Amino acid sequence: MISLWTVLILICYPSRGLLTVAYTLEDEQNLQTALLSGYSKGLRPGRDRSFPMTLNMSFGLLSIKEFDLNTGKFSLTGVFQLNWIDERLSWNPANYNQTNSTVISQSLLWLPDLINVNPYEEITGLRLGLSMIVESTGLCNWYAIQTFETVCDTDVTNYPFDTQICSLRFYVWSYEPTDIDVVFVAPKVVLDLYSENGIWEIQDSATYTKINVYNYKEIIVDLFLKRRTSYYVVSLILPLIFIAFLMGFVFLLPADSGERVGFSTTVLLSIVVYLTIIQDILPESSEPNVSTLGFILVTFVVNGSFVVIAVIISLRIQSQSCQKAVPLCINRVALYLRRRRKTKDMVEPLDTKSELNYEDEEEKVTWHEVAKCFDMFCFILLQIFFFVTSTSYLIIVNT
Amino acid sequence: MISLWTVLILICYPSRGLLTVAYTLEDEQNLQTALLSGYSKGLRPGRDRSFPMTLNMSFGLLSIKEFDLNTGKFSLTGVFQLNWIDERLSWNPANYNQTNSTVISQSLLWLPDLINVNPYEEITGLRLGLSMIVESTGLCNWYAIQTFETVCDTDVTNYPFDTQICSLRFYVWSYEPTDIDVVFVAPKVVLDLYSENGIWEIQDSATYTKINVYNYKEIIVDLFLKRRTSYYVVSLILPLIFIAFLMGFVFLLPADSGERVGFSTTVLLSIVVYLTIIQDILPESSEPNVSTLGFILVTFVVNGSFVVIAVIISLRIQSQSCQKAVPLCINRVALYLRRRRKTKDMVEPLDTKSELNYEDEEEKVTWHEVAKCFDMFCFILLQIFFFVTSTSYLIIVNT
Amino acid sequence: MISLWTVLILICYPSRGLLTVAYTLEDEQNLQTALLSGYSKGLRPGRDRSFPMTLNMSFGLLSIKEFDLNTGKFSLTGVFQLNWIDERLSWNPANYNQTNSTVISQSLLWLPDLINVNPYEEITGLRLGLSMIVESTGLCNWYAIQTFETVCDTDVTNYPFDTQICSLRFYVWSYEPTDIDVVFVAPKVVLDLYSENGIWEIQDSATYTKINVYNYKEIIVDLFLKRRTSYYVVSLILPLIFIAFLMGFVFLLPADSGERVGFSTTVLLSIVVYLTIIQDILPESSEPNVSTLGFILVTFVVNGSFVVIAVIISLRIQSQSCQKAVPLCINRVALYLRRRRKTKDMVEPLDTKSELNYEDEEEKVTWHEVAKCFDMFCFILLQIFFFVTSTSYLIIVNT
Amino acid sequence: MISLWTVLILICYPSRGLLTVAYTLEDEQNLQTALLSGYSKGLRPGRDRSFPMTLNMSFGLLSIKEFDLNTGKFSLTGVFQLNWIDERLSWNPANYNQTNSTVISQSLLWLPDLINVNPYEEITGLRLGLSMIVESTGLCNWYAIQTFETVCDTDVTNYPFDTQICSLRFYVWSYEPTDIDVVFVAPKVVLDLYSENGIWEIQDSATYTKINVYNYKEIIVDLFLKRRTSYYVVSLILPLIFIAFLMGFVFLLPADSGERVGFSTTVLLSIVVYLTIIQDILPESSEPNVSTLGFILVTFVVNGSFVVIAVIISLRIQSQSCQKAVPLCINRVALYLRRRRKTKDMVEPLDTKSELNYEDEEEKVTWHEVAKCFDMFCFILLQIFFFVTSTSYLIIVNT
Amino acid sequence: MISLWTVLILICYPSRGLLTVAYTLEDEQNLQTALLSGYSKGLRPGRDRSFPMTLNMSFGLLSIKEFDLNTGKFSLTGVFQLNWIDERLSWNPANYNQTNSTVISQSLLWLPDLINVNPYEEITGLRLGLSMIVESTGLCNWYAIQTFETVCDTDVTNYPFDTQICSLRFYVWSYEPTDIDVVFVAPKVVLDLYSENGIWEIQDSATYTKINVYNYKEIIVDLFLKRRTSYYVVSLILPLIFIAFLMGFVFLLPADSGERVGFSTTVLLSIVVYLTIIQDILPESSEPNVSTLGFILVTFVVNGSFVVIAVIISLRIQSQSCQKAVPLCINRVALYLRRRRKTKDMVEPLDTKSELNYEDEEEKVTWHEVAKCFDMFCFILLQIFFFVTSTSYLIIVNT
Repeated sequence: MISLWTVLILICYPSRGLLTVAYTLEDEQNLQTALLSGYSKGLRPGRDRSFPMTLNMSFGLLSIKEFDLNTGKFSLTGVFQLNWIDERLSWNPANYNQTNSTVISQSLLWLPDLINVNPYEEITGLRLGLSMIVESTGLCNWYAIQTFETVCDTDVTNYPFDTQICSLRFYVWSYEPTDIDVVFVAPKVVLDLYSENGIWEIQDSATYTKINVYNYKEIIVDLFLKRRTSYYVVSLILPLIFIAFLMGFVFLLPADSGERVGFSTTVLLSIVVYLTIIQDILPESSEPNVSTLGFILVTFVVNGSFVVIAVIISLRIQSQSCQKAVPLCINRVALYLRRRRKTKDMVEPLDTKSELNYEDEEEKVTWHEVAKCFDMFCFILLQIFFFVTSTSYLIIVNT
Repeated sequence: MISLWTVLILICYPSRGLLTVAYTLEDEQNLQTALLSGYSKGLRPGRDRSFPMTLNMSFGLLSIKEFDLNTGKFSLTGVFQLNWIDERLSWNPANYNQTNSTVISQSLLWLPDLINVNPYEEITGLRLGLSMIVESTGLCNWYAIQTFETVCDTDVTNYPFDTQICSLRFYVWSYEPTDIDVVFVAPKVVLDLYSENGIWEIQDSATYTKINVYNYKEIIVDLFLKRRTSYYVVSLILPLIFIAFLMGFVFLLPADSGERVGFSTTVLLSIVVYLTIIQDILPESSEPNVSTLGFILVTFVVNGSFVVIAVIISLRIQSQSCQKAVPLCINRVALYLRRRRKTKDMVEPLDTKSELNYEDEEEKVTWHEVAKCFDMFCFILLQIFFFVTSTSYLIIVNT
Repeated sequence: MISLWTVLILICYPSRGLLTVAYTLEDEQNLQTALLSGYSKGLRPGRDRSFPMTLNMSFGLLSIKEFDLNTGKFSLTGVFQLNWIDERLSWNPANYNQTNSTVISQSLLWLPDLINVNPYEEITGLRLGLSMIVESTGLCNWYAIQTFETVCDTDVTNYPFDTQICSLRFYVWSYEPTDIDVVFVAPKVVLDLYSENGIWEIQDSATYTKINVYNYKEIIVDLFLKRRTSYYVVSLILPLIFIAFLMGFVFLLPADSGERVGFSTTVLLSIVVYLTIIQDILPESSEPNVSTLGFILVTFVVNGSFVVIAVIISLRIQSQSCQKAVPLCINRVALYLRRRRKTKDMVEPLDTKSELNYEDEEEKVTWHEVAKCFDMFCFILLQIFFFVTSTSYLIIVNT
Repeated sequence: MISLWTVLILICYPSRGLLTVAYTLEDEQNLQTALLSGYSKGLRPGRDRSFPMTLNMSFGLLSIKEFDLNTGKFSLTGVFQLNWIDERLSWNPANYNQTNSTVISQSLLWLPDLINVNPYEEITGLRLGLSMIVESTGLCNWYAIQTFETVCDTDVTNYPFDTQICSLRFYVWSYEPTDIDVVFVAPKVVLDLYSENGIWEIQDSATYTKINVYNYKEIIVDLFLKRRTSYYVVSLILPLIFIAFLMGFVFLLPADSGERVGFSTTVLLSIVVYLTIIQDILPESSEPNVSTLGFILVTFVVNGSFVVIAVIISLRIQSQSCQKAVPLCINRVALYLRRRRKTKDMVEPLDTKSELNYEDEEEKVTWHEVAKCFDMFCFILLQIFFFVTSTSYLIIVNT
Repeated sequence: MISLWTVLILICYPSRGLLTVAYTLEDEQNLQTALLSGYSKGLRPGRDRSFPMTLNMSFGLLSIKEFDLNTGKFSLTGVFQLNWIDERLSWNPANYNQTNSTVISQSLLWLPDLINVNPYEEITGLRLGLSMIVESTGLCNWYAIQTFETVCDTDVTNYPFDTQICSLRFYVWSYEPTDIDVVFVAPKVVLDLYSENGIWEIQDSATYTKINVYNYKEIIVDLFLKRRTSYYVVSLILPLIFIAFLMGFVFLLPADSGERVGFSTTVLLSIVVYLTIIQDILPESSEPNVSTLGFILVTFVVNGSFVVIAVIISLRIQSQSCQKAVPLCINRVALYLRRRRKTKDMVEPLDTKSELNYEDEEEKVTWHEVAKCFDMFCFILLQIFFFVTSTSYLIIVNT
C-alpha cells in the first residue's frame, strides 16, 4: 500500500507547505479562536443560498480487501478527497503573522454527510477523521481514508472465468443539487496508490455523478473487475477434467476384471464431491443465472449415472447364457461393426472366397461379442460427449 | 440499489426546492437560533394533549440481504419515511427572507422511538440519522435508511420449494395510541427502489397497523417470499434423484460379478452423505414440521438398508448347495413367474405336447433360478417404490 | 412474537390512559422542569434510609433464540418489567392541569443497576432504554426489553432425549437487601407473549429471589427445557440404527463372494463418520458425563473392529487345506450344532438306523462346515448384541 | 455460577450493613456534594507523595469459559476485588446523621488503570463498573466482575493428556511501585464461587506480584489446568487404537480373498482422516513441540504405507510361476520357520526316521509357502510394532 | 509476554522515580491546574512554527498473534513508545515543592494522530491510552500498547517452506515533515519483550522512516518472518509423499488380483482430498504465484489419472485372446527387455547353444508377457517421475 501523498500533493502543495514559516503558536491560537467564535457547524457554507456550494471530489483506491461471491460482500480500502470553500473560515494571513493554513479538528466544523447507500452491513457515512487542513482562503481539505463494505450483485454464470462490476454509491444526505453540487475532478478512480489484488484484476473504472429521474445527483464509483484464473485452472478445472475424463475408460476395463461397477461409482462420487465443493464457493442464487460450472457438473453426474447403468447392462449381456439366441437386429448391428473393424485391420484381404466363408460362419454372433461392441460404442460416445461438453463450456465462459 | 429520491420527492417536492432562493446564511442562522431556544426535545409535539399527534409512515424496501433458514436471521435494507408536524418548529417565511425550509441536526429535535420487537441480535430502534429537513409549517421529514435484522419463523416442510412470511414489527416506545397515532400512507411496501434478490422472489407485501387486544397499535411490515428453485433443482434434487435411482439397479448386476454388495453400500452411503448435507442447511427444528426432504432421504436410507439385506439374501440363495431341495412353496412361485415370462417370449408355442413335457421337467426349479426371480422381483418393487416416493414428494411440496 | 402490551397494561392501565386529557404541552414542560431541578440521579429513592426501597419485578419471555450445547451459549429475548416509587418524582396533578403521567428520558433518572452474573460474552446490566413513564404518585415503570446471552451448564448424557435447566441470574449492583428489596410479582415466567421455539419445549419455569448464605438476595429466572426429538429421530437415530443393524449381516454373505471384508470395513467406517458428526454437535466436556450416544457409537466401533477380525478368521478357517484335520474340540461343537439344526429340519426322521449311519459318517467335520457354524454363531451373537445395546440405550435416555 | 457475596462479605461486612439506619436521603445528598466538591479524579490518593499508596487485591474465579488450543484464546469470568483508602473521600459520620457509607458512581472518582498485558483481542483495562461503595474512613471498595480474554501459550505435546499453565497478567498503568504498591490478600485464587468446567480441572493456582529486573511489579494470576480425559479416550483414542489395531490383520486374510489391498488401503485412509481431524483441533505450532499424537499418527501412516507395499509383495510372491525356483537363502529361512512350527505342532514325533525323510522332501519350498511365511512374519512384526508404539505413547503422555 | 518496563526504563529512569519525594497531593493539584489553564489541545507543540517539532519513536514487539495466509490478516501486539517536548507543559519543580513529574489524562493533552495505512479491518490510529507521564521539562512520554491488525501481502509459492515480509505502516495525520519530524531511536524492532511464536520465527526486522516521492515521511516497521516447518513436514508433507509413493506400486500388483483399478483410484482420490485440504489453507490468489505445492498436487492428480488409464490398458493387454498375434514392433521391444533381464539373472550361461535355441523359441511373445513388460516399464517410469518431482519440489521451495 502506497502512501497517500499523491492525492494530498495534487491539491494542497502550491498554496501550502512552502510559506509556513515565521508565525508562532500564539498566532495560530488567536486565529482559531477568531474563526470558531460564532461558527455554527450545523449550517452549510455558502453566503448566498440561491447558489449551490461546490464540492470537489476524487476517489483513490488503495486495495481491494475481500470479494465474497457467496454473500456479495465487497470491501475495499480507499480514500475520498473532498475540498470546498467555507467563507466563514477565511482570514487575512497578514493579520496572523503570515499564517497561511491551520489544522482544526473536524468535530468543530461543518462537514457534508456522505451516505453509502449500498452497504454490506450498516449504512455508513464517511468517517469523521481526526483533523482537517484549512487554508486562509477558506478552502477545506478533507481526506476520508476508510474501509468500505458494500454489497455487489454478482453474476456467477462464467465462474471461474467471470468479470464483475462493483459500485460504491453515495449521496449527500439532506441536501439537494440546488444546495450542494458534487463534481468529480477525474473521470476515473485514482490508481497511483493501488496495490494489486491476488484474485482480481482491475480492467477499468469510472467515477461520475448521475442525475436520476427525480432530478437528484448520485455519486458513483464503478470498478470493472476480472478474475485471475490461473489458480482456478490449476486447482479446480484441471483435476475435475481429468476425473471426468476417466469416466469413459470404464468401458475399456475387461469385463471379467470384476472392478467395472466399483470404478464407475467411484468416479461418479468424485464428481458429486466436486459439486458440493462448488456449492460452498458459489451463492445459492438462481438470479440472474445458475453457474455454468454447476450445470456441467450436474451433466457429468447425470451422465455418470447412465454410465453405471450401461456398465450393468453390459455385464448382464456378457453373462447371458449361451443357449439364449442373440436377437436378429442386434446381431446385424454387431456384424456390421465387426466387419468394419475387420476391414480396417486387413487392408488387403488375400482372397475373396475366405471372405465369404467368414461371412457365413459369422452370422452367429455370441453374446460376448455383443457386449464388446456395446462397450466400444459407449466408450466412443462418452469421449465425444466429454469433449463436446468440456470445450463448449470453455468456449461459453470465455466469451 | 436505486437512489432514495422517489420517497423524498413524493412528499417534499411541492413545498420545497423551488423557492429556496433569495435568503442568506445569516437568515438561516437566525431562524435556527429562534426555533431551538426553549425547545425541549424530551416532549412530544402537540399543543393540546387531549388529541394524539399523527405520524405518517411509509416503508420502502431496497434489498433483501440475507435469510438464513438455520438461524432464522432475516436481514434487509430499507427506508422508513416518517413525517409529522411539530408546531414548535413552524415559522413565518416572510420574517426570514423567504426561508422555506432548513436542515437541522436530528440530535437537537424530538423524534419518536420506534422499537423493533422481533430483532435477531439486539433490540434496536430506528437509527438516529444525521440531519432532518424541517419546513416552515413545522412539517418534519425523517428518513431512516437502515439494515434491519429480524427473526423470522421458518417453515421448512417444503424445502426447497418453500414460501416464507417474514415481518418487521415495531411499536412506538412509551406512547399509547391516545398519544401518538401511526398511519401508513400506502397499504403495501414501496418496491420502486427494490433490486431483485437472487434467492427469494417477493410475491406480495403488506404494511398495516394492528389494534391488538390490549388496545395498542403495532406497526407491521409483512413480506411474502417465494424461493427461486432452479439452483436447488440443478445442484440438489437432480443429483439426489439420479443416485437414488441407481439403487435398484444392483439387482440387475449379475450375481457372479462380485460387486453387488459394494455397489449397494456405496449408493447407501452417498444418500447418508446427502442427508448430512441437508442437515447443514436446514434447522434442527421439529416445529412446525420436520422437512419433507429429510423424510424422503431417511426413507431412502431405510430402503437402502433393506436393499443391502436383500442383496445378501439373494447371494445366499444363489450359493445354496444343489443337494438341498428348494422348498415347495418357493418352487411354485418361481415356476409361476417363469411360465409367465416364457409365455410372453413364445407367443406362438408350436405344439402343446412339448409344452407339457416342459412342464414336467421344470418341476425341479434350481436355487439359481429362485435367486434370479428374487432379483427381478426386488428390482421391479424398488423402481415402483422410487417412482412413487419421488413423484409424491414433488406433488406434496409443490401444492 | 407478540406485543408487550400485556405487561404494560397489567400495571399501568387503571392509573393511566383514561384521564390524559385537558393539559397542554406547556403544563408538561413546567412539570418536568420542576421535577428534575435538584434531582440527583446518583442517589437511590427512599427518604428514610432505615427502610429498604421495594423493587417489584416480573419477567416475560418473548422467544428462545439460541441454545448451543457445544459452547453453552443460551440466548433469549425477554422483557423485565420493574416498578418502584421515587418520591422525588411525585406531584400534585391539580397543579399541572390534571397531568397524571409524563414520559421522561431514562438518562435523567435514577435506575437500579441489575447485573447479569452468568453472561456468555460480557457482563451486562439491563439496557438503558429510551424513556420511562412516571406517574403522579412517583411510580416509575421501567421496561427493559432485551436479548440476554447467558451460559448454561449442559448435561448431554441423554442427548438427543435430554432436558436442560437454564437460568438468568441477576443481582442489584452496590446495594444490599437492607437498601433495596426485590420482590417478584409472579412465581413463574410470564408466557403470554411467548412464541414457540422449534427445538425446545418449555416444561416449566420459576422466578424467585434466593437469600444465600451471605444474606444477599439473588434474582433468578429458571427455565426447564425439553428437546423436541422428532427431528433427531428422523435424521440421526434412524440412519444410525439401520447402518449398525447392517453390520451383522456380513456373516450371512457367502464366504466366496469376495466382498465380506469390504462390506464390514465400509460399515465400520460409516459408524466412525457418525462418531465425528456427533462430536461436532456435542461439547468435549467430560463433566458431568460423556454422552451416552458417544458411548454407544464407540461400542459399535469396537464391536465393528471385532467383526472385521471375526470375518478374517472365518475366511481363514474356510481356506484351510483339507489335509489338516479339524481339532477335536471344534469338531464336537460343530457336530452338536449341526445335529440340532438337522433335528429341527427333520421333525420326523423315517428310521432310526439311517440316523445312526449318518452319525458315523459325520464324525469328520470339514473346515468349511466349521466356518459356516462360526458365521452363524457370530451373526446371532451380533444381532443379540445390537438389540440389547439399542434398546438399553433407548431405555436409559428416556428415563 | 455462585453469587459474589463471599468476596463482598469478607471485607465490607464488619464496617457496613449493620449501622445503615437513621439517616435520610438529604443527608446522603449533602455528603456527596461535600465529598465531590474540589475532588480531582485525575490525581491518585495519598496526601504525602513520598509514600506509595497501598492497593489490596484478591481475585475470585467464577468460571472458565473457553480455552481454544488452536488460537491460544483463554477466556474466563472472574472478579477482581480491590480496595484502597482515598483520604479525600473520608468524613465524620456524626456530621451526616450516622451515614457510614455511600454509593458513588465510579465515573466521578479516581480509579487505578489496571491493564491486561497478555490479552487475546484488545488490550483492556478493568471495566469501569457502575458504582462503588465508599466508607466514612475513605475506604473504596471496587469490584470488577468481568470476562477476561487472554492469550495462553499452549504445549500440546501430551494432548489429550495435557496440563496447561495460563496466566492473567496486569500492571498499573502510569504508576511506579514508588507510587502504588499492589498487595495480594491471598496467595491463591478464591475458588469459593467457582463452578466446575467440563473440560478442565483446576489443579492449583497462584496470585502474586513479581518485581522484575526493571524494578517494576507485575500482578500475576496463574492457573494450573489439567484436561479431563474421559471424553477423549472414548471418542478419539479408542476408535483410533482399534482401527490401527486392524491394520496388521491384513496378513491373516487369505491371499486368494482378493480383498487384501482394498482392506489395507481403507485402514490407511482412515488413519489419514484421523490425522486431519487432529489437525483441526491442534495448533500448527512447531514450538515448543509438535503433538506426540500427531507423531503417532504419522508413524501409523508411514507404517500403513509399508504394509500396503508388503501386501503387494506378498501377493507377487504368491503369483510367481512354479517353474522359477525359490532362491536358496529364502528357502532356508522358510524351512527353518516351518520346522519350528511343525515341532511345536508335533510335540511327540513318533520316530526319528520319518523325521529325516520329511526333512529331505521339504528341501523344495514352494513360493506359496514362502508367501505364507512372509505374511506371518509381517503380522507378528506389526502387532509388536503396534503394541510398542501404543504403550510407549501412553507412557510418554502420562508422565 | 514480558512486562513493558524495558522501554519505560530506557528513557524515563534517569529523570524520574528517584526524586519523587517531598511534595504533596495539593502541590500536584496546583501544578495540573496551572498547566492546563489556557492549554489548547488542538494545537501542536512548538512555539516557533518555522521549525518542525521532533517526535522520537521506538517499537517493541510483544507477540505475533495471528497470520492467516488466506485472508492476509496479520495481527501482532506491540508497544509504540513516543516522546516529544511540549513547552506549554514545562514548569519549575522548585515552585511545586520538587514535583518532577505528574500523570495527566491523555484526553486533556495534544497527541499526534498516527494513522495505520494498511489495516486489516478499519483504519485505526494509535489508541488513546489512559494517562501519560509529563516531566518538568515538558517531556511527554506516551506508550501505546495495542493489538495491530494489518494486511500483509503473502507469497505462498514456497508454502510450507515460505518466508514472509510484513509491515506496519503509519503516518502522521494532517502534518507535513515541515511540521512534525519523526525519528526512530533504534534501527530495529525492540525484541527484549518478545515471546516466541509457535509458527513463525523472526529472522530480522527494521524500523525506519522513508521520504517518498512526494517528500513525505512514512513510518515503517518491517518484520521478516520464516515459518517453522517441522509441524508441516510431519502432518502434511510426509503423509502426502507416502501416499503419492504408493501410486506406482499398482504395477507390481499381480494382474489377476482384481484390485488394481480399485487401488489406483483410491490413491488418486486421496491426492484429490489433499488438494482440497491445501485449498482451505492457501489463498485463491494467483498473484504473485500459485503455490508450488498446489502444482505438485495437480501434477500428482494428472499423473494418477494416467496411471489409472495405464492400468486399464495393461489389464486389456492381458485379457487379449491368444489367437490375436502380438504386433511385430511390440514383440521386439518385449524380447529385448526379457533378454536383458534373463542375461542379468543368468550371469554364467552354461553353453551358447542352448542360448541360441532359447532365442528361437522366444520369438513368439505372448500378450501376457507384453503386459508384464508394460507394467514393469510403467513402475520404473513412475518411480523416476515421483523422485524427480519430489526432490525438485524440495529443492525449489528451500532455495
